[in-house]
Amino acid sequence: MEEVKVFAPATVANVSCGFDVLGFCLDHVGDTVIVRKSNTPGVRITKIEGQELPLETKKNVAGVAVEALLEQIETPFGFEIEIEKGIKAGSGIGSSAASSAGAVVGVNALLGNPFSRNELIAFAMKGEELASGAAHADNVSPALLGGFTLVRCGKKPDVISLPAPTELFATIIHPKIELRTADARSVLKQSISLDKAIQQWGNVGALVSGLYTNNYKLISRALVDVIIEPERSILIPHFDELKATALAAGGLGGGISGSGPSLFTLSRGEKTAENVRQALIKSFEPHGIPFDTFVSKINTHGAKIV
Amino acid sequence: MEEVKVFAPATVANVSCGFDVLGFCLDHVGDTVIVRKSNTPGVRITKIEGQELPLETKKNVAGVAVEALLEQIETPFGFEIEIEKGIKAGSGIGSSAASSAGAVVGVNALLGNPFSRNELIAFAMKGEELASGAAHADNVSPALLGGFTLVRCGKKPDVISLPAPTELFATIIHPKIELRTADARSVLKQSISLDKAIQQWGNVGALVSGLYTNNYKLISRALVDVIIEPERSILIPHFDELKATALAAGGLGGGISGSGPSLFTLSRGEKTAENVRQALIKSFEPHGIPFDTFVSKINTHGAKIV
Repeated sequence: MEEVKVFAPATVANVSCGFDVLGFCLDHVGDTVIVRKSNTPGVRITKIEGQELPLETKKNVAGVAVEALLEQIETPFGFEIEIEKGIKAGSGIGSSAASSAGAVVGVNALLGNPFSRNELIAFAMKGEELASGAAHADNVSPALLGGFTLVRCGKKPDVISLPAPTELFATIIHPKIELRTADARSVLKQSISLDKAIQQWGNVGALVSGLYTNNYKLISRALVDVIIEPERSILIPHFDELKATALAAGGLGGGISGSGPSLFTLSRGEKTAENVRQALIKSFEPHGIPFDTFVSKINTHGAKIV
Repeated sequence: MEEVKVFAPATVANVSCGFDVLGFCLDHVGDTVIVRKSNTPGVRITKIEGQELPLETKKNVAGVAVEALLEQIETPFGFEIEIEKGIKAGSGIGSSAASSAGAVVGVNALLGNPFSRNELIAFAMKGEELASGAAHADNVSPALLGGFTLVRCGKKPDVISLPAPTELFATIIHPKIELRTADARSVLKQSISLDKAIQQWGNVGALVSGLYTNNYKLISRALVDVIIEPERSILIPHFDELKATALAAGGLGGGISGSGPSLFTLSRGEKTAENVRQALIKSFEPHGIPFDTFVSKINTHGAKIV
C-alpha cells in the first residue's frame, strides 16, 4: 500500500457536564486526509483544500502529530499529506483533532498498523497542543475511537470508551463568529465552588450511567453544566435562546460544543434531532449572523480508511 | 402483620472520588430495627440496645424518618420502634442511615409497602438531616437500594442504582477515635481548583464505567480523591500509612469511609480483602489506638426484612 485516504470525523468535546474529559464522535462531517509514502524522508504537507492553514510541517497539526508518531518508529521512507478540510477551524467541533487523527491513522495504516487506536491518541494530542496550547485528548479520543470517550487526567491520558445508545442523534449549530479556544479558556475561573463541583461530578457519573443503560431520561437530566457554561456562554451570541429553543423542540440536552462557538444538542431519534435543527434555524436566522447546522448520528468507529 | 424485624446494613459514602454522590452497601454489619404496630397514634422509640442514643422521637434519626413518612400517608395506628445498634455512631459507615433506613422499611412493610424503596430515601434523609445537619442521601440510598448508588444533586435527590461487580469486597478499619461529621465537614475548603475538579469528575465517570464493565483495573485507577481526602485525612491518625498498607496488600483503592474515621478498601476477591484486613491490623496495632476491622461483600439488596 502506497497511499491511503482517511475520513476523520468532527467531534464534540466536554458534552456539558464533562469539561475536559468527555467527548463524542460525529458522522459524515469531517476532514479527508490522504497520506502517501514518499522516497524523501520526513513529513510534508503538500496540499490543504478548503481552508487557509499552514503547510509548514511544524506549524500544521497533522504535521506535528505524524512527526510525534515517527519519533517512536523507524521508517525507510517519508510521508506526504494532503488535507481536504471539511470542518472549519475554530468552529468548536474538533477541526484540528480531525486532521491530526486522520493523519496518524493514515500513516499507521501505511506502516502496517504498529500502533493501536488508543496508542495513536498521544500522537494526535501533539496536534492539539499546537492548536490550542494544551495537549487535550477530549476531541482526538472520540475522533480515533468513535462513540463516547472519557479521558481520565494524568501524566498519560487514560481513555475509556463508553457506549453510544443507538437512538442518540446530535444537532449542531455553528454560528460563524470568531472565537479562539485560548480566549474561551481565558474566561474560565480557575477556582470553583465545591458545591457546584459536586453537582458536576454527580452529573458526569449519571451521564455515564445513562450511556450504559440507554436511559435517555437520565442522559437528559445529566446534561447540565453548572460550571463552564455560565462563564463561557456569554461569548456566544443568543446562547440562552438557542439552548432553550433546542430543549423546547424536544432535545434531551446540550450546550457548548468544545470551546464553542458551535452548540450541540442530543436528541432521542433522528426525527427529533431534525426538529431541533429546524427550530434552531428559525430562532437564529433573524439575528443576521451567518451559521451552519447539521444532524448527525453518533459515529461509533471514528476515523476510517475509505 | 403486626411486627417486622429489619436488618439495615452499614454503608460507605463518598467512595473516594464521589464525595457527596457515591455510596455502596455493606453486608452482615448493620442495625436491627423492630417495628411494631401500636394502638397509640404516633411514633415511639421504645428501646435502643448497644448504644446510648436518644429515645425521644424528634431527637432520634429513626423517629424523624418515620414521622416524615407518616406525613405522607394516613394510618389508623401508631408505631413502636426498637433498635439494636450494630453500627457504632460516628464510625463513618452510615450508622444513622442504617437506623433511619431500617425504620422506614419496617413501617412501609407494615403499611403494605405503599412506597417504593426509592421513595423511602427522602424520608430516611430526614434522619440524616438530624444527625449531621445536612439531608444527604449518600448513605441512605445504598442502605435502601443496595449495591452502589449515585445521587445527583437537586431539590429532590435523583438516585441511580449502579451495578456492583461480584468479585468486589470491602475491608473496613474503624480507628475508635471521636470524629464528628460536622467537624469533618468544617475542614473542607468551599472553593477548589478547576484542575482538581476536572480530575475528580474524570475519576467519577471512570469509576461508574468500571462498575458497569467489571473492569477492576479501571476501578482501581479511578479510586482517587484529589479534593476531599487531602483535607480530611489529617483528622485520621496514621491515615497515609493505613492507605499505603491496604494498597500494598493488594487493595484496588480506597480512602475515608463517609466523613471517617473508618477507612474502606475495595479489593478483587474475598481473599485479597482478608489479606488487606490482616495487613491493616499489623500496621495499626502498634499505635495503641483501639480499632475494629471487618471484610464484607457488597450487599446488593439493602435493608431486608428478616
